[in-house]
Amino acid sequence: MSEATNKDQPFRYFIDLSYDGTRFLGWQVQPKGRTVQGELIERLSTFFREEVYVIGAGRTDAGVHASHMTAHFDLSTEIESPSDVAYKLNRFLDTDIAIKRIYRVGAEAHSRFDAVERGYVYRLSRVKNPFAVGYAWSFERPLDLNAMNEAASTLLEYRDFAAFCKADADVKTTLCDVREARWEQVGDEWVFHIKADRFLRNMVRAIVGTLIAVGEGKITVEEFKEIIESEDRKKAGSSAPGEGLYLSEVAYPSDIEWKK
Amino acid sequence: MSEATNKDQPFRYFIDLSYDGTRFLGWQVQPKGRTVQGELIERLSTFFREEVYVIGAGRTDAGVHASHMTAHFDLSTEIESPSDVAYKLNRFLDTDIAIKRIYRVGAEAHSRFDAVERGYVYRLSRVKNPFAVGYAWSFERPLDLNAMNEAASTLLEYRDFAAFCKADADVKTTLCDVREARWEQVGDEWVFHIKADRFLRNMVRAIVGTLIAVGEGKITVEEFKEIIESEDRKKAGSSAPGEGLYLSEVAYPSDIEWKK
Repeated sequence: MSEATNKDQPFRYFIDLSYDGTRFLGWQVQPKGRTVQGELIERLSTFFREEVYVIGAGRTDAGVHASHMTAHFDLSTEIESPSDVAYKLNRFLDTDIAIKRIYRVGAEAHSRFDAVERGYVYRLSRVKNPFAVGYAWSFERPLDLNAMNEAASTLLEYRDFAAFCKADADVKTTLCDVREARWEQVGDEWVFHIKADRFLRNMVRAIVGTLIAVGEGKITVEEFKEIIESEDRKKAGSSAPGEGLYLSEVAYPSDIEWKK
Repeated sequence: MSEATNKDQPFRYFIDLSYDGTRFLGWQVQPKGRTVQGELIERLSTFFREEVYVIGAGRTDAGVHASHMTAHFDLSTEIESPSDVAYKLNRFLDTDIAIKRIYRVGAEAHSRFDAVERGYVYRLSRVKNPFAVGYAWSFERPLDLNAMNEAASTLLEYRDFAAFCKADADVKTTLCDVREARWEQVGDEWVFHIKADRFLRNMVRAIVGTLIAVGEGKITVEEFKEIIESEDRKKAGSSAPGEGLYLSEVAYPSDIEWKK
């Protein structure tokens, strides 16, 4: 490692990782309890022998998983071989967090503000499956997949998703650009894929819960659209549990990676 | 349910199930500790309100999983709706055992002796993966997949697998008819598929461990064949751990199902 030439221009790195959310209270660092961010701050600081703060592309709630999360951190010295460091860090971290890649970015790059798209996956297990416990929501009652997909596709027609935003969420705007929203059948599971530029707090779980109400015939596709238009969270269905939810993608402009 | 007409001719049922082996000491009932067979005997006896003994198609060791196991049990009364009973039993059993199907067979049908083929799967994770902990063996060192597949295919040329049989196993014969043995790459995992009429104790894990020695270049394909020919367990590689192993198939003659 070489010294940074200027304290105002630290070496900034993006880190792609995955984690099993089961034993975490969520992403965001808390005074008490194990969190992904807290664990990364502690372990990276010990590993690099300097105070390392880690900022993530988003927050996941307790029990929610990430098959792909991106975060960033600064170092006073340069990492000579990011792949070597990723390998060693994987040995140093617990088994429920895995680093996929570490790469240098410009000092202004920001994992949260520069992200242009996020993707989530929600797994619904239609039969009892011992291997899906904690990793999919078990839902064995009959569901109309076509109606759920018809309702899901209408999400692309709207911009304001206040109806699916947690009431206490401190956000300036409830506008999102939803670019994909579809259910697919994979063996005994139904898997929901959704992509947007940004997501509101609790949004995917509220959408999944409300789409399931459509699938059960409790509300029609037309009523689903009226719920979105109402911009009233109380009108939407209950939230699906966190155990089926995965942050699966965070995308950045292609030039964000620092080419040496 | 109706009374059995003859005590010597009970109503016999096959039960297809899956289980996560993590929290079990294995299949076989033991004086102390939780086992799949023990759990089934206890729960089925309580559910059916009579002593129900459960015999499985085979035994799995501690930590070994089953995506498909078949067992049988007798009842003094007939099950009117096996699918209803399977549904209710799934609610009554813990989350790490799932019943896939219950079906009536002839009173002489035997889940172990009548099985004509068994299949196992072994999962090798090539990268750190938080979702594979306990469900795949993490093996990140370089391996030659082609050499492993070349060695695996030679298993079909032999009949005596004493070299891959645990020394203390109480078996009359070490002859097996291996019908499939191949590795396939699935994303970041290498998955080994093996099928045979029967398997010796510890056989799959010993084969996987020895094939990995081939993949690492520690032994050649020719030496792999010499190990089989030696019929000496001490010559083979160490056993791969149980967490990557799944019993995946038990096959019976098509006429074993009792047609009402």
